Amino acid sequence: MGFFEWRNPNLVSFSGVRQAFFNGTSSPRELLEQCIDRLTEAESRVHAFVEVDLAAARTAADAATRRYRDGQPLSDIDGCPFGVKDIIATRRFATRMGSPSHRDHRPFTDAACVHALLSSGAVLVGKTVTTEFAIGLARETSNPFDPQRTPGGSSSGSAAAVGAGMLPVALATQTQASILRPASYCGAYGFKPTHGTLRLDGTHIMSPTSDHLGVIGGSLQDIWLTASQMALAVGGNGTRPLQRGGQPLVAQKPRRLVRLYTSGWDEMGRINGATRGALPISDDAAASQLPASASQQVFDAFVERLSMGGVEVIDRHGNAELAQLEAFLNSILDQALDLIVYEMQWPFRDYVERFGEVIGPRIHQMVAQGAGMSPEHYRDLLEAREQVQARLSQVLVALQADGFVLPASSGPAPLGLAYTGSRTLPSFATLAGFPSITLPGLMAEGLPFGVQLFHLAGRDADLCDLAHWIDSYSA
Amino acid sequence: MGFFEWRNPNLVSFSGVRQAFFNGTSSPRELLEQCIDRLTEAESRVHAFVEVDLAAARTAADAATRRYRDGQPLSDIDGCPFGVKDIIATRRFATRMGSPSHRDHRPFTDAACVHALLSSGAVLVGKTVTTEFAIGLARETSNPFDPQRTPGGSSSGSAAAVGAGMLPVALATQTQASILRPASYCGAYGFKPTHGTLRLDGTHIMSPTSDHLGVIGGSLQDIWLTASQMALAVGGNGTRPLQRGGQPLVAQKPRRLVRLYTSGWDEMGRINGATRGALPISDDAAASQLPASASQQVFDAFVERLSMGGVEVIDRHGNAELAQLEAFLNSILDQALDLIVYEMQWPFRDYVERFGEVIGPRIHQMVAQGAGMSPEHYRDLLEAREQVQARLSQVLVALQADGFVLPASSGPAPLGLAYTGSRTLPSFATLAGFPSITLPGLMAEGLPFGVQLFHLAGRDADLCDLAHWIDSYSA
Repeated sequence: MGFFEWRNPNLVSFSGVRQAFFNGTSSPRELLEQCIDRLTEAESRVHAFVEVDLAAARTAADAATRRYRDGQPLSDIDGCPFGVKDIIATRRFATRMGSPSHRDHRPFTDAACVHALLSSGAVLVGKTVTTEFAIGLARETSNPFDPQRTPGGSSSGSAAAVGAGMLPVALATQTQASILRPASYCGAYGFKPTHGTLRLDGTHIMSPTSDHLGVIGGSLQDIWLTASQMALAVGGNGTRPLQRGGQPLVAQKPRRLVRLYTSGWDEMGRINGATRGALPISDDAAASQLPASASQQVFDAFVERLSMGGVEVIDRHGNAELAQLEAFLNSILDQALDLIVYEMQWPFRDYVERFGEVIGPRIHQMVAQGAGMSPEHYRDLLEAREQVQARLSQVLVALQADGFVLPASSGPAPLGLAYTGSRTLPSFATLAGFPSITLPGLMAEGLPFGVQLFHLAGRDADLCDLAHWIDSYSA
Repeated sequence: MGFFEWRNPNLVSFSGVRQAFFNGTSSPRELLEQCIDRLTEAESRVHAFVEVDLAAARTAADAATRRYRDGQPLSDIDGCPFGVKDIIATRRFATRMGSPSHRDHRPFTDAACVHALLSSGAVLVGKTVTTEFAIGLARETSNPFDPQRTPGGSSSGSAAAVGAGMLPVALATQTQASILRPASYCGAYGFKPTHGTLRLDGTHIMSPTSDHLGVIGGSLQDIWLTASQMALAVGGNGTRPLQRGGQPLVAQKPRRLVRLYTSGWDEMGRINGATRGALPISDDAAASQLPASASQQVFDAFVERLSMGGVEVIDRHGNAELAQLEAFLNSILDQALDLIVYEMQWPFRDYVERFGEVIGPRIHQMVAQGAGMSPEHYRDLLEAREQVQARLSQVLVALQADGFVLPASSGPAPLGLAYTGSRTLPSFATLAGFPSITLPGLMAEGLPFGVQLFHLAGRDADLCDLAHWIDSYSA
């Protein structure tokens, strides 16, 4: 018995089959065909892709197949099929940003991450759907577990494709919640490394302080190896190289974890699940009086199992330091959005001026808001962000804990495709720039959601090692 | 009598004539025509521009003229003619990167800095020549003071156009020496703000830790106001906003400056001037035995005048701390280049693979070198860079000094167009990411070179204020 009561049966793990490539019992081409079969079956319902090039993918998979037969794969991910969120530049496909303004946009160069994967032998299958510039209008993708529900945003297609078993790996980005939230909703693994560790060059920019590149995948090994390859193959970014990049993960039992509730927990009591009806989203007081929702109960039970498994989990109850930290985190959430709004003036003001109503209303509103902000306010926001980093670090060190644990989203995917879900729970690690991960394995009312773990800046491998222990635990 | 014995008679100062725009005694159109006259006269000799659009510039200048007549200019630089180094994206012109590989490259969006200036009413005249991707082969531009000599690189066209009086302002970038060196050789002002202060988005990337955006201009006010406008008009970058951005400069007498010699001083004794012959560039011991070169004598005399003017200048002579700092700085210079070589793997490895011999030999060599470097070595380089920042800061604080002073280049421009000059003297402030500036005003053997001042990170306005005092001093 492990900590998770549910496993997503769709998930494809590249690492899980790779060994068979060497002796010829399987091959990259065979794995690709399995993905294509699933894509053919599910895509008309899920709409994960903007565009695919299966012929090119088959050619690339065949080349990888030959390299394994010769015992000379290019890398740990040679032959791994992957998709690319459509705000990330590719030469093979137009890069449409989820916006009609970029319908015919053909970048000169593959993004750094795409170049890294292609030169490592990975097999590019297609571009995955993003919300408008990863911040605006939601698009046509639906949740692989319920076509009436959002897959989450903004990495909608990447999460849906992986969650539906069409790909072992897809590139994704997160400026607030856009890797962990959709991965959580779609029953996939998601990993957002330390800010700056993966080069964002060639990825559409929104907020230099908050934009992160990451991976959604079918196994922890896959996302780790893919992130490693991206970190190591294309030079540096001014950030320290990925911790133990490229080395195999080793399951490490955490001695102690800090559980965070935050206002995201109250949202879980309020907005989650068809059976709870709709409370006004701002009514925190009312939410905190509600009996536990199904997803809250599921997460509490998971934490209970963690404790039974020998992991000490401490939280705000009876710990004044953590209670203060939580209050501080709740108070900082609006400032995280202000930071984005100020920074996105370029290039979004240009887009609004050039393309008018072709750009959705939310972006218009954010650009107008950013134009009214002062450099002094921006400096305050940068200082607030540093305070978040400092306080999270102080708490973890003071409590001698090995990481933070909290839900990856406010329960399962909400109904409808227009609203891609609450940003709250993944936002804290984003604002801090700390590495965070979601593990699939929880289910409430028949729908998946994930467990979020995060660690301090630069502790990416340590985070993945403890996630590996939790993911693979068996008593 | 001021500190400078020479003034570049060509220089055009926008700020110097702007007041006349309000009462109609002059106009942006009149200023533009003056620039165009100079361009028409000198361009066939200087080759500063890749492409110009004079019709579009005249239209923009006329619109600015109307705004001044109405008393409603858009900004402090409304109507200011400017050029854009051709590694910076413009929609109006192809952005050719100084390379045939990008002959037809049309970016989707203006670079952040270009968007900032255009939306502030500045008048885009054309694209200025850059060396190949600002790191490789030199191109056709010559020095406005001697067509047999380099204008310096990589911002060759920007410096030559300003130094020849074709423009009051041109955008430039510096990864090692590429703003201060050509500005020095061409008798222009050059300003490289604190790393990250000006957004590089839309500027071709080479090294995220070392790339800087800046300005070459015809007056200190012009470069300050242009930098301010770029800093304030397009949101933030995660770096603190420009110190006192947009506020007028106030001449501030420095109480004490630290003079740095470094190995760049020895180069001045060796490589400088037609009369000195050619010593092997690596022969430091021989160089240090030479009698002072003309440019060394000129710089020594400038420092003497500074002292006479009441500025205390301290240096390594009799100061063990400074002697140690200099030895450390000299030892770190190769690592500055290693940092660039590692980081430039993307996108340059892609270019080398796609375009082969269309890409020059130096870039091939650097890409090959970078491919052999390890992430561990890169981490060491980042730590060495932090040590440079820390040691420069400690020294300045400990000595209660107001900045560093040293030559902006190893004397005047060397002969020939293929070699764009030594990187040494401007490299230290680049590696540290500290704001640096060059003031024209020295002349050796009939050719100009500049005085470099630099300050600590974030002290951009303080630096410009003290530069203003030095520049405008009159006894």
